[in-house]
Parts: sequence; C-alpha cells; structure tokens
Amino acid sequence: MIISGLLTSLERMNDNTFEHSPLTVLGLGAMGTALVRAWLAAGMRPTVWNRTPGKADALASEGAKPVATAAEAVAASGLVVVCLLDDASVGQALDGIDLTGKDLVDLTTRTPAEARARARWAEERGARFLDGGIMAIPPMIGVPESGGYVFYSGSRALFDEHRATLSVPAGAEYTGEDPGSASLHDVALLSAMTGMFAGVAHAFALIRKSDIAPTSLAPLLVDWLNAMAQGVHEQAARLESGDYTRDVVSNLAMMVEGDGTLLRTAEEQGVTPELLTPYMALMERRVADGHGEEDATGVIELLVG
Amino acid sequence: MIISGLLTSLERMNDNTFEHSPLTVLGLGAMGTALVRAWLAAGMRPTVWNRTPGKADALASEGAKPVATAAEAVAASGLVVVCLLDDASVGQALDGIDLTGKDLVDLTTRTPAEARARARWAEERGARFLDGGIMAIPPMIGVPESGGYVFYSGSRALFDEHRATLSVPAGAEYTGEDPGSASLHDVALLSAMTGMFAGVAHAFALIRKSDIAPTSLAPLLVDWLNAMAQGVHEQAARLESGDYTRDVVSNLAMMVEGDGTLLRTAEEQGVTPELLTPYMALMERRVADGHGEEDATGVIELLVG
Repeated sequence: MIISGLLTSLERMNDNTFEHSPLTVLGLGAMGTALVRAWLAAGMRPTVWNRTPGKADALASEGAKPVATAAEAVAASGLVVVCLLDDASVGQALDGIDLTGKDLVDLTTRTPAEARARARWAEERGARFLDGGIMAIPPMIGVPESGGYVFYSGSRALFDEHRATLSVPAGAEYTGEDPGSASLHDVALLSAMTGMFAGVAHAFALIRKSDIAPTSLAPLLVDWLNAMAQGVHEQAARLESGDYTRDVVSNLAMMVEGDGTLLRTAEEQGVTPELLTPYMALMERRVADGHGEEDATGVIELLVG
Repeated sequence: MIISGLLTSLERMNDNTFEHSPLTVLGLGAMGTALVRAWLAAGMRPTVWNRTPGKADALASEGAKPVATAAEAVAASGLVVVCLLDDASVGQALDGIDLTGKDLVDLTTRTPAEARARARWAEERGARFLDGGIMAIPPMIGVPESGGYVFYSGSRALFDEHRATLSVPAGAEYTGEDPGSASLHDVALLSAMTGMFAGVAHAFALIRKSDIAPTSLAPLLVDWLNAMAQGVHEQAARLESGDYTRDVVSNLAMMVEGDGTLLRTAEEQGVTPELLTPYMALMERRVADGHGEEDATGVIELLVG
C-alpha cells in the first residue's frame, strides 16, 4: 500500500497535467501562440490574453482559457508568461495590475538594461522576475529536435521552481542572476547571425551574374561556414589569454592581402563591397598598428569604446 | 595466372607510389610546403622550386628534389603545380619557360578574371590549365578528416587524368570548364566567412564589458551559427524561384524591428555598430521599397550593380 502510493506519486510527478502550476500567457502573436500550443500539447490549459481580441479564438477551441483583461489573466495564475511586442508594451499591459506574489517570466525582446529595469519594476511590485531570450522561431517551439531554446536570467528560485513548465516549449538555459544576462546572450547570438547573413548575401551576389546556381553553392556555403565557425573557439581562448598571436596560422597581414582578391572579385562581378569593407578596414587598422602577426581577434578591441 | 596478373594491376592502381606521374611544385610558402609534404607522405618525390632558396632544404631531407631554377623544375615533370603569392608572381616565375605539353595546375589565389586570363596565357604556350582554389589552411592539408578541399576548374581532361594525384593533399572538387569558376566559388565562400567573423567580432565585443566569459559564449555561438546557417538553403531556393515571400517565418519588417534591439544593446555595451549597420541599412531599404513581407533574400539584389 505504501509502495503503491509512492508509485502513484512518482507517476504524478512525471505527469505534466498534474505537476505544472496554473499558467497564464500574455500576448498571442506568432511566438505567444506557439508557446500556448506547446503547453496545450503537454496537457496544460493556459489562461490567455491578447490586447486585441480574436487571436484567442482558435486557442480556446484547443483548450486554452481566454480572458477579457490582462488583470484577469494575471489573477488566474501564479506563473505569468509575457510575450509582447516590446518592453514598453509590457509596462502598458501590466500598468496598475496587482503583481504581489506573482512569478513573472518575460520573453519580450529587449536590451539588457531594459531587462534590468523591468526586473526592478517587477520586484518593487512584489513579483519575482525572470527575463527570457528566445533562440528559436515559432515553428521550432514545441519541437525538441529543432534545437530551439530560451536563455533565462534573473530569479534563480523562480527558474528552479518552474523549470519543468518552462522546458515544455523549448530547452531552458539559465545564464545567471543578472536579469540582463539572457538578453545579452540573445543579442550577441543574433548579432553574429546578422554578420553571417551579410556575408552570405555578398556570396550570393557574387554568383548572381555567373552560371553557378544558388542551390549548388548553398551546400558548399553551409559546410564551409559550419567548419570555419569552429574558429570561434580559438578566438575565445585568445581573448581570454590576451595573446592574439598564439597558434596563429593565417595572420592578419595575410588576411589583409587575401582581402584584395575578395574586393577585386567583387568589382569584377559588379558587386558593391559595402557589407565586407567595414571589417576589412578594421583588420587593416590593426595591421597598420603593428599587429600583423596576430589573428583577427584584436579587431574586437577596436569595436569597444 | 591471368587473374593473378589482373589482381597485381589492380593493386598497383591503388598504390600511390606507382600510378602517379612525376610532379613538380613551384612555390614553397606555408601552403606549397604542406602540399609537398602530403605528396611525400604518399610516397611521391616531387621536384620543388622556390624563388628564394633555403625553403627546400628541409623538404630535400624528406625526399623532395630541389632544383635551382623554375625552368628546370618545369622540365622535370609533366604535371606542374603552382602555388605562388599572386597571379603576377606566376607570370614572372614562368616567363620565357617552355610549357609545351605541360599540365599546369595553378593554386595561386586570384580572381575569376585573372584565372581566365592565365588559362588563355597557358594555352597559348601549349599547356593545359587547371585553376584551383584551396578551401583549407596549411595544417588541414594531408589530413582527410579536416574536411579541407580544393575547387578546380578549367581543363576537364587534365583534372580527370591527374585526379588521384590532386586528391592526395585534400579533396578535389571540379566545378566546371570555365577557368574562373574555381576562384569564384573560393571567393564566395571566403566572403561569406568574412561576414560571419565580422558578426562574431561584434558578438564578442558586446560581452567585453560583461561578466560573460568568451569561452562560455563560444559554444553557444558556434551551435547557433551552425543551426542558423541552414537558412542558406532556403535563401538559395528563394533566389532561384524569384519568390522571396515563400515560407517566410520572420519577415523583413520583423527583422528590422528586431535590429533596433541589437543596435540599442550595442549602444548600452559601448560597442560601435559599424559591422552590422550596412546590412541593416539594406534591409531597411527593402522594407521602404515595399518588400516588408519578404525574407532578407532581396537584399542580394541591392548588392549587384
């Protein structure tokens, strides 16, 4: 009898529908809707609210519980997940609403400073606060094999308590107590991706007037970028050691030389080099400053004021 | 007896030391030296020449055959691999030398137009010509698991005849009869990589004044870039279809919105946004031109004059 009772408890712990505490989701854009669907698929019935009504209709037929006001939505659950347009929208939506004792998980895109300010704002109102940066697009939500995940930072206690629920839509990566940390991680990765796609745009532009098909270049590009991205580990190690010459194979002077071929090829193909020249100019500046024997890591120093 | 003779022939075909024709390598910089070592390791004894002597000494002790002049080096083998500083160096090194009947494989870094001109130049002198673009750094040469390879374009007959020899130092990828094709593939991949590392530099700059360690960000960056690089396939498909709205999840208008958070974060962290702004400006221009519902593929059109 004791053993059977214990087993039942264990089973309950593995049962999403039982262990998760009531949950509210504010904001039903593409991302908010994807999150709600992931929780619905896990057997939960989130309370949902959106500034403009109508977006909740489909979700209601799937089991979500729409309410008319943000205040009702917040009152319905201890755990309130926010996924609005921007930080200002969060302030407006939650203005005047009692947050005492609430656990606020805010996935709204914002800067580190905005996250820290919003955390203070929430704490002043008696809530615990966790900021989140979503490293996924909506179709990746609720699809574990997509590799999507969310950076979380802020209240460790909140994260630990709700980790199971938060892990339902996507992997959960806690980055630290500083509420700005998740956003900084998020923006760093998105910024690197922006650079990568700028380079990819230049690459596709180069072949625009050639007989090379984009879909024949694409797998070569992907394999090459994936292989070369491993160099990020070496840059990180050099940054931490402060020695940018360690184990350098292609040094800056050689890279700057090679840049000449890239620029002349762009000119031949009628492609403006504007997406590559700012980085090349910084590499040249490092060489001119006497760092030709280093790798490109030193460029990073030129970016920080 | 017949079968045993056949087997012996087959074994010989698999024996590098037997089947490869005599080979000359001109240019013993880091890359030329790595190539020679790979062929030495395969049991071959390349004839080698370098403009400034001394570089051949170590290779001679390993089995290579140094000669005093480029003319002697070219005369020694039917297959002549060139790996010099730039296209002009090739013209200077081979000036006045009889190339009749030679197979010239030129791995010197150059633009597509330079490769085409050099191919004509070689053919006028009675040689077959293959241009190569090396997608590897010297430590990857002779290390199959490194994934390094060489793009080749130009004479298909030359490539087919010497494929086994050319495949010893690194994988061999033939891209077409146009002698400029290998270089264009090469430069396209290097250009994309340049963009990626510009983005990575910005990402590392963002955390410079934070308590996030570069080596803790690095694995996240690498995984993220590897995952997001898959988007290159979709861009290629959109380029070929001409429909930049197909299956778009994050459209340009949303991306431009998100760029605001990236720029404000850069400002908070004291990082100049100059590596990201040119691409962002082109995205904004596309949105202003009424393409907000597309993905970023259309930016490519703005790069080609």
